[in-house]
Amino acid sequence: MPSYTPPLRDMQFVLHEVLNVVDELKMLPPYADIDADTINAVLEEGGKFCAEVIAPINLSGDKEGCQLDKTTHEVTTPKGFKEAYQTYIDGGWAALACDPAYGGQGLPLLVNQCFYEMLNSANQAWTMYPGLSHGAYECLHAHGTDEQKKLYLPKLTNGQWTGTMCLTEPHCGTDLGLLRTKAEPQADGTYKITGQKIFISAGEHQLAENIVHLVLARLPDAPAGSKGISLFIVPKFNVNADGSLGERNGIFCSGLEHKMGIHANSTCQMTLDGAIGTMVGQPNKGLAAMFVMMNTARLGVGNQSLGLTEVAYQNAVAYAKDRLQMRSLSGPKAPDKPADPIIVHPDVRKMLLTARAYAEGARALQAYTVLQADKSISSDDEDERKEAEAELALLTPIIKAFITDNGWIATSHCMQVYGGHGFIHEWGMEQFVRDARINMIYEGTNTIQSLDLLGRKVLGNNGATLKKFGKKIAAFIEEEGTNEAMQEFINPLADLGDKVNKLTQELGMKAFGNPDEVGAAAVDYLRVVGHMTFAYFFARMAKVALEKEGSGDPFYRAKLATARFYFAKLLPETASLIRTARAGLKPLMEMDEALF
Amino acid sequence: MPSYTPPLRDMQFVLHEVLNVVDELKMLPPYADIDADTINAVLEEGGKFCAEVIAPINLSGDKEGCQLDKTTHEVTTPKGFKEAYQTYIDGGWAALACDPAYGGQGLPLLVNQCFYEMLNSANQAWTMYPGLSHGAYECLHAHGTDEQKKLYLPKLTNGQWTGTMCLTEPHCGTDLGLLRTKAEPQADGTYKITGQKIFISAGEHQLAENIVHLVLARLPDAPAGSKGISLFIVPKFNVNADGSLGERNGIFCSGLEHKMGIHANSTCQMTLDGAIGTMVGQPNKGLAAMFVMMNTARLGVGNQSLGLTEVAYQNAVAYAKDRLQMRSLSGPKAPDKPADPIIVHPDVRKMLLTARAYAEGARALQAYTVLQADKSISSDDEDERKEAEAELALLTPIIKAFITDNGWIATSHCMQVYGGHGFIHEWGMEQFVRDARINMIYEGTNTIQSLDLLGRKVLGNNGATLKKFGKKIAAFIEEEGTNEAMQEFINPLADLGDKVNKLTQELGMKAFGNPDEVGAAAVDYLRVVGHMTFAYFFARMAKVALEKEGSGDPFYRAKLATARFYFAKLLPETASLIRTARAGLKPLMEMDEALF
Repeated sequence: MPSYTPPLRDMQFVLHEVLNVVDELKMLPPYADIDADTINAVLEEGGKFCAEVIAPINLSGDKEGCQLDKTTHEVTTPKGFKEAYQTYIDGGWAALACDPAYGGQGLPLLVNQCFYEMLNSANQAWTMYPGLSHGAYECLHAHGTDEQKKLYLPKLTNGQWTGTMCLTEPHCGTDLGLLRTKAEPQADGTYKITGQKIFISAGEHQLAENIVHLVLARLPDAPAGSKGISLFIVPKFNVNADGSLGERNGIFCSGLEHKMGIHANSTCQMTLDGAIGTMVGQPNKGLAAMFVMMNTARLGVGNQSLGLTEVAYQNAVAYAKDRLQMRSLSGPKAPDKPADPIIVHPDVRKMLLTARAYAEGARALQAYTVLQADKSISSDDEDERKEAEAELALLTPIIKAFITDNGWIATSHCMQVYGGHGFIHEWGMEQFVRDARINMIYEGTNTIQSLDLLGRKVLGNNGATLKKFGKKIAAFIEEEGTNEAMQEFINPLADLGDKVNKLTQELGMKAFGNPDEVGAAAVDYLRVVGHMTFAYFFARMAKVALEKEGSGDPFYRAKLATARFYFAKLLPETASLIRTARAGLKPLMEMDEALF
Repeated sequence: MPSYTPPLRDMQFVLHEVLNVVDELKMLPPYADIDADTINAVLEEGGKFCAEVIAPINLSGDKEGCQLDKTTHEVTTPKGFKEAYQTYIDGGWAALACDPAYGGQGLPLLVNQCFYEMLNSANQAWTMYPGLSHGAYECLHAHGTDEQKKLYLPKLTNGQWTGTMCLTEPHCGTDLGLLRTKAEPQADGTYKITGQKIFISAGEHQLAENIVHLVLARLPDAPAGSKGISLFIVPKFNVNADGSLGERNGIFCSGLEHKMGIHANSTCQMTLDGAIGTMVGQPNKGLAAMFVMMNTARLGVGNQSLGLTEVAYQNAVAYAKDRLQMRSLSGPKAPDKPADPIIVHPDVRKMLLTARAYAEGARALQAYTVLQADKSISSDDEDERKEAEAELALLTPIIKAFITDNGWIATSHCMQVYGGHGFIHEWGMEQFVRDARINMIYEGTNTIQSLDLLGRKVLGNNGATLKKFGKKIAAFIEEEGTNEAMQEFINPLADLGDKVNKLTQELGMKAFGNPDEVGAAAVDYLRVVGHMTFAYFFARMAKVALEKEGSGDPFYRAKLATARFYFAKLLPETASLIRTARAGLKPLMEMDEALF
C-alpha cells in the first residue's frame, strides 16, 4: 500500500519564503490577524488527518467501489468512508475557509487549498465528497437569497450536508446550451424539476444527512441555448423553514457509472421526477451563477492532480531507493549488494525529477493563484479586487489543464519506475494514474480550458491581462539582471517570455483571419504559457534557494537541483510546442471528414 | 461497445504499394510461390475472424476477468474465450507462419504480423494466449533438440497446446542475473525445478490441453549472474514419449495478479515445486536461447500498441462524427442540427490525426521490420541474412518503445475525444488506454529498450548499423531530390537525418567520458530515431500517394493529408527531444539520493 507524508516543508517554503503570503493576507480585512504559526499549525494538523485517516482507505476504496441499492436508490460508499467523514466534520475541517457568519473558521482560501492538496494526495475519490460541497457553498454564498443562505450555508459549512453540481446530461456536457431538464414554476414560488443528469460526482451517498444539489434547468418560457438556463437548489430531503429535514425529494440516483478511476466516488446518473427546487439568482442567468462554482472547481481539479503527482512521486522515490536491479553503467554504486538501487540509473531519476518538478511548480503556481482568489474576494480596494480577479481568470485554465496534463505524465512516470509492479493494483501506483485521468476531462475538458485561455482570456482582451502578468515577470527579470547566479534561470525565462509575446501576436493575427486558428493552436499555446508560469516560479524559488543555500539546510540544495532539472529537461518542450502551434490550422483541416 | 473494421486497405497499401513485399518474399526460398492474392485472402479472412469472433468478447472479458480456483489451481478465462480459442484452432490460425515440417502453413512472419495487428485491435488480452505460444514455438524451433521439436512443435503449431515464458521473479525482472529458481539434474537426464515466478502471462487457463512453460533456472553449479542461467521446458502435464499427456507436473498457478488492464489475460504467480523439466540448448546459455523468444515478443508488443491505436482511432472517429456539441468557431457547419459534430473542432481533429498518423507510421515500420525478420531467417544468402538480422536488431527496440509510447498517447487522445464518456467502461475507450499501458513495461521496459538501442545497437558497433539504415534514407532522398512535390517531405527528413548523425556522434563522445551519459539521453534519443523512421516511411508512402492521387481513389488524398499532418504536428517533437538529450547527465545527478 502506498504511503504519504504531507509536504509541509515545501508548502511553508512556497507560502512564507517565496510568496510571503502572511504580509499579503494581512492587507485583506478578514485576515488582518493571520500569522504564519496559525497557518502552519492548521496544515500540520490537516496533514496528519490526511495521512492517518484518509490515505489508509484509498486503495481499499478503489477496490471496493460504491454500491447502489436499486430499490431504495441509496448508495453505500466503501468501508471506512463514513467514519472518516465523521472525523472530518468533528475536526471542523469542513468549515476551514467558510464565512464565520455561518459558522466557518474564516481562514483564507489559500490555507484550504493547501489542505486540499493533502486530501487529494491521500484519497482523491474520498475528497470529492466534501470537495463538491465547497463549490456549492461558494455558489450559494455568492448568489443565494438571505433565506437560502440561512437555510443551507450553516450545514454546508459544518459538513452535516454535502453539495453537488448537476450540469451534464447524456447529450450535453461541454455544450450546456443544449440541456433539456425542465423547471415548472409552482404557485408557492418553488419549481418542479424533471430531467436526467449524468456524471454527478457524489450525487448520492450515506455520508451526510442531506445532499444539496445545484441543478441547471430550463424554465418553460426560456430562450433556447445557454441564455435560457436557470439554477436551482434541489435538496435530497426537502428542508423545512426551521432547517429540519422534510420529505424525500424527487431526485434520486438511477445508476452508478463504472469508471476508469475514482471508483470510490459515486458518479451518479440522477433522475429528477418533479423534484422541488428553489431558484438561485435570476431566471435564465443560471450559467453565470454556476460559473462561480465551476471556477472554484477548476482550481480544485488542478489541485487534485498536484496531490496525485506528489503522492506518486513520494512512493516512486521510496521504491527506487529500495529496489535493487542492474548496476550503474558507470560502475557499481552499492557493491555490497547484489545490484544497485534503481535510483542510480539516470532515466529513473529523470522520471522521478519530472514528477517532483511538476509537483513543486504546480504548488507555487496554485498558491500564487489562490492568493489572487483571496484578494479578489476580500480586498477592500476595488482596483486590487479587479486586478486579482483578472489574473485569477487568466491562470485558472492554466492550472486546470497544464497541471492535470502534467499529472497524467507524472503519475505514469512514477508507475513506470515500478516496472511490472506498477501495473499491479496492490502497489497503488496504477490507481494514481487512473484517478489522474479524469482530471483532464471534467469541469471542462483541457481543450475547452485552452480555448478559454487563448480565445477568451488572452485574445478576448487583446492580451491585456497576459501583458500585466508578463510585466511582473519582466520586473523580476530586471531585478535579477545583475545577479550572476540567477542568469541560468532568468535568461531562459526572458527568452520564453519574448517567444510567448511573439506567438500571442501571431495567433491574434491569424485568428483575425480565421477563428478556427484559435482552436488549432490553443492546446499547444496553453502548455507554452504554462511553462512560462512554471519557469517564473522556479526562478523565484531558485532566487530564495540561492540566498539561503549557505544556511546548510539541504532543502535549498534540493530546490536548486529541481529548478535546474526543470530548466534543462522540461522547459525545452516549448521548442516543439511553439513549432506545432505555429503550424496552424491547415494540416488539421486538409482531410475531408468522410476520409477520417 | 466499440466496433472494429480491419484496416485491410491500408495493410495492402503498405505491403504491396509501398514495400512491394511479394517481390521481396519471392526471393526467399520458402516463399518462392507467394502472391498478393494469397496474402490478401488470408488477411481478409483473418480480419473477419478478429472482428466477428474476438472483438465482441473484449469489453466483457475486461469486466469479468479471470478466476483462480485456489484448491485446484485452475484458472477460468472469461465467457466466450474458450469457444473463440477453439474457433481459432479450427480455422488453422495458430499454424499460419509455422514450419510445414510440423504441420504449419508456412506463410511469412509478415503475414502473421498483420493478422496479429488485427487480433490485438480486437482483443489484446485474448490474443496473448496464442501470442505467447508463438514465442515458445520459435524458441524451441531454434534451440530445441530433434526430440523436443517432435514432441512439442506440432501441438504448439496447431494450437492444441499453448506456451509461456517464465522469466520474472519477485526480486528480479529487468535484472535476470539475480534469478534464484533452481534446476537439479536427475539420473534420467531431466531436471527438478523449484522456485517462484511472477507476471507469467497466460500462465494457467483452460483454453488448451497443455501449457508448455519455458522456464529460466539455475543449475546447482552455475556461475553467478546472467551467465549461469539455463532454459527448460516445463509442461503443465508431463508429455510421454508418444506425445500423449502424462501426470500433472509440479508447476501451478499460486495467484492471479490484479492489474490495471488486460484483465482477461491470466497473469499468474507460478510456483514450481520439483517440476520436471528438460533443458533447451546448452547449460548456462539459457538467456541467449530465451532472447529468440524475447525479440519476437518485443515486436509483438509494438504490434499490440499498433492494434490498440488503430481500434481506438476508429471508434473515436465514429464518435466525433456522431456527437453534436458546440458550433465551429468559424461558423455553424451543420446548421440543421442543434450543434456541430465535434469533428469540426480543430483540436478534436488533432487528437484523431495523431492516433491515425501513429497507427499508419507504425504499420509501415512494423511491416518493413518483420520483412527483415523473414529475410534474416529464410534468405539463402548469408550476407543478406546477416544484414537483415542487424537491421531487425536495430529496429526492434524502436518498435517496442516508440510504438508503445505512441500507443499510450494515442489511446489517451482517443479517449479524450469522448469527453466524460471516455472515462466510462461501457464505451470501451478507457480499456484501450489501460491495456496499452502494460506494453510500455513488459518484455523489457521502454527505458531498457532505449539503452539497448543507443548503448548496444548504435554505439555498440560505432553506429555502423544505423549508418547503413541511414544510407537507405539518404538514397531515397537523393532519388526524390528533383521531385518538387516531394520537397515538403524529404527536406525535413534530410534535416532530421543530419541531426541524428550529429546527435549520435555527440552522445558517443560523451559516453566515452561517462557511460551514464547513455542512460541520460537514451529515452529521448530513441524517440528521435523513431521519428526519423516514421518520417522516412511517411515520405515513402507520400511518394506513392502523390503518384496515384490522380487515380481518383480518395485513399491517396487521405494518406497525403495524414503524412502532412505528421510532418507538421508530430515530427517537431524532435526539436525538444534533441535539446533534452543534449542537456545530458548533470541535471539528473545533481540531486543527492538522500534529498529525493
